Amino acid sequence: METPTSSITVTAFRWVPPFARGFVRDLRVRWALEEAGLTYHSKLIGPEEKASAEYLAWQPFGQVPAFEQDGVKMFESGAIVLHIAEQSEALMPADAAGRARVQTWLFAALNSIEPAVQQLAEIDLFHEGEAWVEQRRPQVEAFVKRRLEALAAWLGENEYLEGRYTAADLLMFDVLRNLQHTDLVAEHPTLEAYCGRCAARPAFQKALRDQLADFVPDPAAA
Amino acid sequence: METPTSSITVTAFRWVPPFARGFVRDLRVRWALEEAGLTYHSKLIGPEEKASAEYLAWQPFGQVPAFEQDGVKMFESGAIVLHIAEQSEALMPADAAGRARVQTWLFAALNSIEPAVQQLAEIDLFHEGEAWVEQRRPQVEAFVKRRLEALAAWLGENEYLEGRYTAADLLMFDVLRNLQHTDLVAEHPTLEAYCGRCAARPAFQKALRDQLADFVPDPAAA
Repeated sequence: METPTSSITVTAFRWVPPFARGFVRDLRVRWALEEAGLTYHSKLIGPEEKASAEYLAWQPFGQVPAFEQDGVKMFESGAIVLHIAEQSEALMPADAAGRARVQTWLFAALNSIEPAVQQLAEIDLFHEGEAWVEQRRPQVEAFVKRRLEALAAWLGENEYLEGRYTAADLLMFDVLRNLQHTDLVAEHPTLEAYCGRCAARPAFQKALRDQLADFVPDPAAA
Repeated sequence: METPTSSITVTAFRWVPPFARGFVRDLRVRWALEEAGLTYHSKLIGPEEKASAEYLAWQPFGQVPAFEQDGVKMFESGAIVLHIAEQSEALMPADAAGRARVQTWLFAALNSIEPAVQQLAEIDLFHEGEAWVEQRRPQVEAFVKRRLEALAAWLGENEYLEGRYTAADLLMFDVLRNLQHTDLVAEHPTLEAYCGRCAARPAFQKALRDQLADFVPDPAAA
């Protein structure tokens, strides 16, 4: 009997500015699929497609990634990564208690760490030089630091958030990557080592290469 | 045969300032438990407990809610609400496709809507009068508006995000409540009606009463 071929589609942008390459959120989904050993194809979209009625019916905010597997359409990188994790013990234990712990840290990555990190990254990437930044940035940075301290205290000398590698580490590392233009992670050697472990995973490297390879060099071709 | 009694604990603050009452995130968990028909008891904590080593081992960021059910400890309101939804079709259909759609919108509430709403609410509640706000607030408000437009377009004339009420509506409404000091939701009559439907649910009203009843009036007693 043949193994049925899973037909998975992930949307990604055909072009983004160089600074954003490797940081678009379809990376999370590509990485999860690599860890789970599931094949997929990327459906590349440009400015016209992302604003089309057809795409907005799939991804109402006009973003990537959107995801389709066996006729089920999803969006939100966190939801998709969790959905993939439910199909593979490489990303989440099968027992109820283990799943509850992975879900906890998966949401912690996206809701206790990412909003602060995202605010800081947005200031540095998109608002540099605006007058309000001088007063606001230190407040946001202080908040990021408190959250990283709590995260480093939890991690301690453990390799991963819940002992073994899970989907929560996948999302946590992808969030922390958005601080790589700062030294905030490096202030915590255990966190820096954690990020190194995640970055070294072959599935991450493969997903990163595949996202980068999909971009066209010229925005006119997007 | 007797139904086994579920032993569920939810942590909540013993005291918060009056403006925050009814908005602390244990409300989400209380509400989900009411919808699911699961009993629980609230464990009230104060400033000393939330900074204790024992509590930080349960909730590493020193926040509420933390949750325990049958020996499994969790935190993150989103993770806990999803965990409860997995136990009750009142909050999530049992079929895989239906679950995937609820997970999608549950993450959308917390990751596509809440970060923008939270930024605006924080500016208005905690930073009023600071010099940077004058320049920054319009940027944040414009982003919130774009997200609400997309949300209203998705909702259309439907009663709930995925047709029937689910855990995604619970979280979406609790996020949108943080805009009640503005007229941003009212600009979309369908969104305002949606919020009205969610607010009228008896389980929400019960959860809100129970959160409010748990606060001590005097911070000295916290």
